[in-house]
Amino acid sequence: MTNPHKLLIIGGVAAGASCAARARRLDEHAEIIMIERGADVSFANCGLPYYVGGEIGDRAALAVQTPASLKALLNLDVRTGCEAVKIDRAGKRVEVKYLADGRSEWLAYDKLMLAPGASPLRPALPGIDDPRVLTLRNLQDMDRIVAATAEGQRAVVIGAGFIGVEMSEQLRHKGLSVQLVELQTQIFPQLDAPMTDLLESELRRHDIDIILGDGVTRFESQDEHLRCHLNSGEVLDADLVILSIGVKPDTELARDAGLTLGPRGHIVVGEFMQTSDADIYAAGDAVQTQDRVIDSPTNVQMGGPANRQGRVAADHIFMPTKAKPYPGSLGTAIVRGFDVAAGITGWSEKRLIAADKPYQTVTVNDYQHATYYPGAKPLSLKIIWEPESGRLLGAQVTGFEGIDKRIDVMATAILGGMTIDDLCHLELAYAPPFGAAKDAINLAGFAACNRRDGLVRHITELPTDPQVQIVDVRPKPLVDAYPAPGTVINIPFPTLRANLDKLDRSRPVITVCAFGKMSYFAARILAQEGFYVSSFSGGIKANIDPRTPAKLPTA
Amino acid sequence: MTNPHKLLIIGGVAAGASCAARARRLDEHAEIIMIERGADVSFANCGLPYYVGGEIGDRAALAVQTPASLKALLNLDVRTGCEAVKIDRAGKRVEVKYLADGRSEWLAYDKLMLAPGASPLRPALPGIDDPRVLTLRNLQDMDRIVAATAEGQRAVVIGAGFIGVEMSEQLRHKGLSVQLVELQTQIFPQLDAPMTDLLESELRRHDIDIILGDGVTRFESQDEHLRCHLNSGEVLDADLVILSIGVKPDTELARDAGLTLGPRGHIVVGEFMQTSDADIYAAGDAVQTQDRVIDSPTNVQMGGPANRQGRVAADHIFMPTKAKPYPGSLGTAIVRGFDVAAGITGWSEKRLIAADKPYQTVTVNDYQHATYYPGAKPLSLKIIWEPESGRLLGAQVTGFEGIDKRIDVMATAILGGMTIDDLCHLELAYAPPFGAAKDAINLAGFAACNRRDGLVRHITELPTDPQVQIVDVRPKPLVDAYPAPGTVINIPFPTLRANLDKLDRSRPVITVCAFGKMSYFAARILAQEGFYVSSFSGGIKANIDPRTPAKLPTA
Repeated sequence: MTNPHKLLIIGGVAAGASCAARARRLDEHAEIIMIERGADVSFANCGLPYYVGGEIGDRAALAVQTPASLKALLNLDVRTGCEAVKIDRAGKRVEVKYLADGRSEWLAYDKLMLAPGASPLRPALPGIDDPRVLTLRNLQDMDRIVAATAEGQRAVVIGAGFIGVEMSEQLRHKGLSVQLVELQTQIFPQLDAPMTDLLESELRRHDIDIILGDGVTRFESQDEHLRCHLNSGEVLDADLVILSIGVKPDTELARDAGLTLGPRGHIVVGEFMQTSDADIYAAGDAVQTQDRVIDSPTNVQMGGPANRQGRVAADHIFMPTKAKPYPGSLGTAIVRGFDVAAGITGWSEKRLIAADKPYQTVTVNDYQHATYYPGAKPLSLKIIWEPESGRLLGAQVTGFEGIDKRIDVMATAILGGMTIDDLCHLELAYAPPFGAAKDAINLAGFAACNRRDGLVRHITELPTDPQVQIVDVRPKPLVDAYPAPGTVINIPFPTLRANLDKLDRSRPVITVCAFGKMSYFAARILAQEGFYVSSFSGGIKANIDPRTPAKLPTA
Repeated sequence: MTNPHKLLIIGGVAAGASCAARARRLDEHAEIIMIERGADVSFANCGLPYYVGGEIGDRAALAVQTPASLKALLNLDVRTGCEAVKIDRAGKRVEVKYLADGRSEWLAYDKLMLAPGASPLRPALPGIDDPRVLTLRNLQDMDRIVAATAEGQRAVVIGAGFIGVEMSEQLRHKGLSVQLVELQTQIFPQLDAPMTDLLESELRRHDIDIILGDGVTRFESQDEHLRCHLNSGEVLDADLVILSIGVKPDTELARDAGLTLGPRGHIVVGEFMQTSDADIYAAGDAVQTQDRVIDSPTNVQMGGPANRQGRVAADHIFMPTKAKPYPGSLGTAIVRGFDVAAGITGWSEKRLIAADKPYQTVTVNDYQHATYYPGAKPLSLKIIWEPESGRLLGAQVTGFEGIDKRIDVMATAILGGMTIDDLCHLELAYAPPFGAAKDAINLAGFAACNRRDGLVRHITELPTDPQVQIVDVRPKPLVDAYPAPGTVINIPFPTLRANLDKLDRSRPVITVCAFGKMSYFAARILAQEGFYVSSFSGGIKANIDPRTPAKLPTA
């Protein structure tokens, strides 16, 4: 077959540029035009916050490619400042407008790729048009924020997702005071709440004022600053506001062209990234694809999926018989706040609850490498699985080092259709600087299987019922320094077997320790001694100062 | 059923101690006796080199557990300095001898676990009994080495596997001169040769004198030092010698008891770690299990498998209906030398060649995270797959940071039965400090599929045939500074399309670049222009100073 001669790509950042590069690799002679409304193509949008804080010192490093470099490397016809106005599907052409001079023209296509991306949400709140209310999508937005930080001292960041957390960190690096406002009752709301505790305390430790369960209702301009009025009635004074409450897909063009959109306005695509018009493809933040874990529509705004989607589309356009489908998105994500990282892959517990799907979960606390080797730092790993099959549905990790590694292994395990049994026997790299003979991931597998096999009952909240005997098995000095809430009997673990007579077999017991490991050990003893016992999952982590990690018993 | 009452465990380090701990969790009332010939149980043998070099300052940190702590935590009867002399299988008892007083007794068992481990090889070379020829298995060996380093200045390390590389590094930390002798023509011979180049140059950069393709034939004692005579005739003067040429399983006891051993003397076990006697289990360095990638017997001397094997045995003894089989070993391994790490999982190319198995391979060079974010450091990733199915068989990674992460992801992908197509769409965590929109692992998947789909031919050696046109597409200054070997035409990539007339379509072309990426791009152009072209896989890496990484084109 003759390859399509003219490929027109609307949008030149992640999905669009990847599609163009792959297309050129596959067809040296196709005419490839890539238009971009903004001033830059193929820039490193995930790097923008780090330039604001000065971690990335060279602005040019963010402009990964330019129209000239793409011409030289890929023989692409790249037009920036060029907006697509209308798609004429019957005529297979797109009307474009050049923002510099207002000129319009029609560009013909054999195949069209839509990679319009998504815009930061700017709800119609009073005062939101004040120029001090900033969002971050491109280099020009970044420049505006940098200019504002040169003049202002007080920043209010609205929304504690990726951009909100990263911008808060970077604004603190820059020396500004930062107040971070989040409508939900936790930061980084993709994760289940307890998994963001460490990140939250790390941000607070760096003097970021976190205001949870509150949102902005209006902005009031004063002479020198902006007043942010919150739902709670609180008023925050700001020299600049970063609005990072989410994005909406830029899909007006697709909608006007009559392409099928999803319920939230995303372009619906098939497994080869084709829209409802087989000659029009779409990829990136603006599309709705399939979830890879539970068959359902999803939309992921991340660079990785965008790049790979663009590539799949190019494959399908230029080598249709060899192209492999896009397998869907998993929703892997990670964020860093100072020394702490938190990440997620697959489904969270709250998302499963909302979708009314059955699941089981355990959380284990461990270290990123052997505790006998210097520099061991704690991490928490939560895994979620399907009760019947044991198939993994999701994982969340937080801690100081090796967080990305555990997320990536869990993402791979989920994509491999692995189960909690498989986690037990992942053979991961172990040398003292890198891991442990039993990695946290193996331990999570053990804990999950123990639960499945009925070896332990877990509870995640300590009851106040006086009938329940709460047994804290930590050493007494630790218990005295960091008591567990409620009425607690302290029986240090090594003395438990000798002190069974202090407990009443007719009343339920909950065992508690620092990390959730000794309490499991204690629960095993008590269960075999005839007690009805549950182990407090995850432990009283508060007593572990992560800067001076305590040694865990490894037996 | 009634659980077995008496479990006797021979060997108290990784496999034995893990079995004991799990056994106690499963049966609070079983009698569990663990005997150990050495002075210590459950010590961190992988940490021993790091104490020699002072990275681990606290010797007690290596003694993870003691008989007393195991009594307190697990109610175990632990007997150190206690050697098993004979197994009476018919009588289900073991004769043990207490080394302190020479006393012997018979200990009865319902189930017996053999976890004897493996001993460092000490071939019968002349002079090998000199006390300055040291091996490293336990804390006492370590103490002897530490004492030797206090007196000596010149160390010769024989054998460049894990222990050899780690000891060389640590002895340099300690200020000794180090000569590292390896019989094979590369260090860390588990890996395929080019993947150890970076580690080798890093050791040399730290003044370790590496002698390859040579071995020791005899040791000659002088008054003040030891002379190590090599095959080559070279003689090395040493104050101390570390012999780290491998281990042999300590399986005389099992052999004498008539248990089935493998061809190399390992105890053959089934999927629940049972030996040829169903009441006798075995685990750890001394056993032969199944390979997880290609159905064949294997023996892996690593802490992770040993620990998990011990646990599987305990499960099968105490909850046989719920126990899951040990799925076999993969052979995941990692070693660090100063700032460089190198790791492997699954099968190497040379092992596949030796086993006469078909395979394909590609190597990609990339960075551990986005290049626009400060601190990007290069890494090389080699993947190996089954040609027909695309199923992954092995991977090797080397570089500065994130090496363990890629090994672990690849290990998980291999265990998940994943293919090169699956690698393309692993959705790994990306934020600038942690990764890239397309991780090196995705790129390896792309490169492998490109090869499978006939988009590119790879070659791994530059021919000297003058008929072949070798086209170096790097910028001229780089070519001048670090020329490729042989007669080379330099056409910088951006000018290639305009200079096709400089090449002869009737002669083959090989494209060359720094990392193997631009040469692939160039090969795609030339192939579509009618040339018979191959891309030089992996590039001329020598021109990249890893301390000041160059920016890779990302298009």
